[in-house]
Amino acid sequence: MTSARSIDVTRVNEWKDGHLQSVQDYLVAEEPLEIRVNNEALAVTMRTAGHDLELTAGFLFTEGVIQDATQIVDLKPVAINGKSNVVEAQLDHAASLEDFRRNFTATASCGVCGKASIESVRLRGIRPPSTEFAIDPELLCSLPEKLHAQQVVFGRTGGLHAAALFDSKGKLTVLREDIGRHNAVDKVIGWALQQRQLPLSNYAMMVSGRGGFEIVQKALEAGVPILASVSAPSGLAVQLAREFGMTLVGFLRGRRFVIYSGPSRIKA
Amino acid sequence: MTSARSIDVTRVNEWKDGHLQSVQDYLVAEEPLEIRVNNEALAVTMRTAGHDLELTAGFLFTEGVIQDATQIVDLKPVAINGKSNVVEAQLDHAASLEDFRRNFTATASCGVCGKASIESVRLRGIRPPSTEFAIDPELLCSLPEKLHAQQVVFGRTGGLHAAALFDSKGKLTVLREDIGRHNAVDKVIGWALQQRQLPLSNYAMMVSGRGGFEIVQKALEAGVPILASVSAPSGLAVQLAREFGMTLVGFLRGRRFVIYSGPSRIKA
Repeated sequence: MTSARSIDVTRVNEWKDGHLQSVQDYLVAEEPLEIRVNNEALAVTMRTAGHDLELTAGFLFTEGVIQDATQIVDLKPVAINGKSNVVEAQLDHAASLEDFRRNFTATASCGVCGKASIESVRLRGIRPPSTEFAIDPELLCSLPEKLHAQQVVFGRTGGLHAAALFDSKGKLTVLREDIGRHNAVDKVIGWALQQRQLPLSNYAMMVSGRGGFEIVQKALEAGVPILASVSAPSGLAVQLAREFGMTLVGFLRGRRFVIYSGPSRIKA
Repeated sequence: MTSARSIDVTRVNEWKDGHLQSVQDYLVAEEPLEIRVNNEALAVTMRTAGHDLELTAGFLFTEGVIQDATQIVDLKPVAINGKSNVVEAQLDHAASLEDFRRNFTATASCGVCGKASIESVRLRGIRPPSTEFAIDPELLCSLPEKLHAQQVVFGRTGGLHAAALFDSKGKLTVLREDIGRHNAVDKVIGWALQQRQLPLSNYAMMVSGRGGFEIVQKALEAGVPILASVSAPSGLAVQLAREFGMTLVGFLRGRRFVIYSGPSRIKA
């Protein structure tokens, strides 16, 4: 199996209407990435290689390890045995591995539930996104096609998630792909962090998959006012979006969508 | 927002061809589940409530914390503030939180890469699944429809993943749903563990989403000989399946599918 950065090429057997043939296939690449903070391993995530520094920066930000870009003193890939699957971050403060890991369970001790999950987001000091930004519904309907047109890897492999930012005119500003939905979102937010574009008050974020709690939480952390998806959000994702006044749109397909939260940012 | 076990009901705004209307919507429920082992919090996973004991048993098994059902001395839900989002497992051995967490990073120290990820699966003592089990291609094509017909929650919410086991005659034996693909697989494997059905040598497993590395790893851990999906696997998932001689089928739609690994279990 030949391995490129984000695509693996291999021969497979295709069965079709009773006939079997050997064909060449393109697969989305998946490799572990170890995120090291101050010389200690913080996390390992399965990801599609590419934009690893953005992924790391975004992950550290959306997981609450850092609050802004200036806290990253140094960020670099570390090659081991010729493989670049480690990113090393030096922060300007001690980030205890245990603190990070305890983050969720600490909340859990006072009752593990959706409400406690939402409360944990509030405790991080996250504020409602800007109320200034709004988008035209017709323009909103045009986003999925723009997203898809830019998905370079998906076209060949059929296996990638994407996250992208669009401005109020519907112009695609940045798009990132990954086998993991969370990673695609972290890459986009990491890009914004590195570009000093946070909070993302003037952007709508579109994701290719479903909008669960953690995707909404990450977008909120980055100050995204409108989060749109082609698919269904979870009940808890909707509760979280409503609690913080974020606009959450789902089932964005053709000339139809559902507004789950924050309808005022969709121009009537 | 009314909350049932697996469905949240709420009112939303639907925009369609320029018209906006308020409609009732059904959302897949998502709540955190804390898994406690020997009175210590091991993990918190966002899941759709239901079959929590199976999820916990399956998680402990596929993450390598236990090797068989007899190691679970006691398994019970713990209600806190009237919410049942904690499952407590008492094991017959000490399961160090740190050991579990170090599991992956230990491998990482000798090079973080796909090969090391595959090696870590081998180090757990996982063996190739049975070579006895085979399935007819026409029968294979009938599985997605059977899976979909049994997905009770998906029909209303459009937001759930499913995993199911089928026998060699194509009969659906067990199906579990969850907002997380991994959780749906863990619930099915947890069911098998509790029913003393492991290894699953006489079953094909079908999952609704993509087959990434971790899904293949979990299925391998349970001895599943055939893993099928309607969507694309990753390159690393294919490598892992080939390494262990598991049959991996993707893009199972209509009268077509792709055999990525182990074609001998698909009867010509």
